[in-house]
Amino acid sequence: MLVNNQNYRTIWMQDSSIYMINQQLLPHKFEIYQSKNHLQTAEAIKSMIVRGAPAIGAAGAYGLAQAALLYEGQDYEDFKKYVDAAYNALNSTRPTANDLNYALNFVKSKTFVPDSITNSKMRAFEAADEYANWSIEMCRQIGEHGNKLIKNNQNILTHCNAGALACVDFGTALSPIRIAHYNKKNIFVYVDETRPRNQGSSLTAWELANEKISHAIIADNAAGFFMKQGKIDFVIVGADRIAMNGDVANKIGTYEKAVLANENNIPFYVAAPLSTFDSKCRSGSEIPIEERSEDEVLFMHGKDEEGNIKKFRISPQESPAKNPAFDVTPAKYITGIITEKGIIKPIKEEIERFVRNKNQQPL
Amino acid sequence: MLVNNQNYRTIWMQDSSIYMINQQLLPHKFEIYQSKNHLQTAEAIKSMIVRGAPAIGAAGAYGLAQAALLYEGQDYEDFKKYVDAAYNALNSTRPTANDLNYALNFVKSKTFVPDSITNSKMRAFEAADEYANWSIEMCRQIGEHGNKLIKNNQNILTHCNAGALACVDFGTALSPIRIAHYNKKNIFVYVDETRPRNQGSSLTAWELANEKISHAIIADNAAGFFMKQGKIDFVIVGADRIAMNGDVANKIGTYEKAVLANENNIPFYVAAPLSTFDSKCRSGSEIPIEERSEDEVLFMHGKDEEGNIKKFRISPQESPAKNPAFDVTPAKYITGIITEKGIIKPIKEEIERFVRNKNQQPL
Repeated sequence: MLVNNQNYRTIWMQDSSIYMINQQLLPHKFEIYQSKNHLQTAEAIKSMIVRGAPAIGAAGAYGLAQAALLYEGQDYEDFKKYVDAAYNALNSTRPTANDLNYALNFVKSKTFVPDSITNSKMRAFEAADEYANWSIEMCRQIGEHGNKLIKNNQNILTHCNAGALACVDFGTALSPIRIAHYNKKNIFVYVDETRPRNQGSSLTAWELANEKISHAIIADNAAGFFMKQGKIDFVIVGADRIAMNGDVANKIGTYEKAVLANENNIPFYVAAPLSTFDSKCRSGSEIPIEERSEDEVLFMHGKDEEGNIKKFRISPQESPAKNPAFDVTPAKYITGIITEKGIIKPIKEEIERFVRNKNQQPL
Repeated sequence: MLVNNQNYRTIWMQDSSIYMINQQLLPHKFEIYQSKNHLQTAEAIKSMIVRGAPAIGAAGAYGLAQAALLYEGQDYEDFKKYVDAAYNALNSTRPTANDLNYALNFVKSKTFVPDSITNSKMRAFEAADEYANWSIEMCRQIGEHGNKLIKNNQNILTHCNAGALACVDFGTALSPIRIAHYNKKNIFVYVDETRPRNQGSSLTAWELANEKISHAIIADNAAGFFMKQGKIDFVIVGADRIAMNGDVANKIGTYEKAVLANENNIPFYVAAPLSTFDSKCRSGSEIPIEERSEDEVLFMHGKDEEGNIKKFRISPQESPAKNPAFDVTPAKYITGIITEKGIIKPIKEEIERFVRNKNQQPL
């Protein structure tokens, strides 16, 4: 992704340090956070310096490689113990993110071939890099497939941030938009603010501004207005989990946009790698919805006129809030799901065929 | 309305001062603003110390009475000139609000019977008070009619603030909720935050907290989620303008909630006095939609940890925003319109019958 006209990834590793775009400070300040050991990396995941399931997966993978590389002893059993402890520390940072556990297992399985500690360290780093590159390639392929759906002069609505910042690069929902822009298509993106955490106005808008893709932030309330006015040709969002019947769990508000797109005859697409399908989940009703802290609704973060990033109260002291973080969009509102293997109709039989044939991850 | 267990109106007059709840400071601080002359009153309307069409109407009416009362000369022609100048100053504060102009004309027409300046002053004050009391009575009647629709143990969703603070007392959408609560019905109110100006979380929640009506603030994105979960029995909103075919212009996001209520088979009611119907407007497509400053989306007001109310940026420096302030909800999504004369179906013939038979305003 472009940031200040330079090419960046959300996260990368050099020598034994992990570097990541500090998402706590966006959109107000662009800063690279340097983690010097796996404990700092675990802390960075916990405190959401890095967020988004694929990005957290890569942070975990690199974090485990970092532990291996920084091990200073000579005893292989002791090395294993040290790396296992790092695995546990990293794995417990965000217990619900499936990608994190998957990435850690992948790196661990490649690391522990007991020939030499030096070779094991090398393999750990290579496995972490392979994982990150695989993640980028999945996103890039989603972008290529999605790009075919986007015509010149179209206006696209997106919700939340399923962008490069949530992945290692490209993003999921933003990948087709990026690739369309790289292919010189003239497009305009309506960016849902995405209350309560404002990932749209603080992250998606920031990514689009950096890529110089024309866009405007809108209140979530205004999406239906623009749809009804005929100003939106196409909706594209990411996904947190997809059931085998095509129901999609994603950021709160996705369901509202899907119903409104359907009412206004606007195509509604979900972009996600095949790894987002949960083969054990038959329908959306089986997906538990996380209720997050009411403070996300009652307070906000912003930059005051002196340039300080602060927490502000925006509600009465006496009023409680309810804060479901995700919702489930029934398959009937979804036009198609853009994956690395092509576009899937949200129908059980078609999903099963694609998921059965997906490649072993990663590669 | 109750505030800290005491009965208040949004605006009232005593001697030659006008007192109003300072809505610039809510929900963080409850303060009564005292306006000592009509120029201060005009400024209070302009700076939104008082807001909401019916409340602005009352502010204009009292402001004109204030000008009359404070006139110190003895010449009737000079008195008329002075009051006319005040009329112009007050009328130009918010040029789009129809109630303001209506209220000013009402008070002016009652004032200028050239018998004596003393009598004219008296009539000006009485007319302003009559206007304010009429407004309260309309709202109370809307509440009585709407209350009949609300059953015990129901959960109600409301959008924006069509509360006592937007009127002189009771409110429109909040009036049935208040009356149901006064009648000891057990109800729960879901309060849409209502981005970008947050009238839901800052005003509606504040009113409900003061009345001790159970409620929770939700992100606008979460309304559809709660509807789909079967948690909402009833939606009630206010209206800025209603076309003769039943299309309703109201705060941005109203259309989204109406479509979602319809999709989930939830009754969707609009509460408004008959004066909100525009007999010259045949359908919603004739209603112009105001585009407000993008700063309302890009910045927010809140209270920092030191207790200071400040403006802060919540978006990237480079990103523009689009900010339509209202939308139009087609009549087909509306179950009924709660007026002071009863509940109207949003059908041309029925609307025409009610509007033709409405009483001369006020009284």
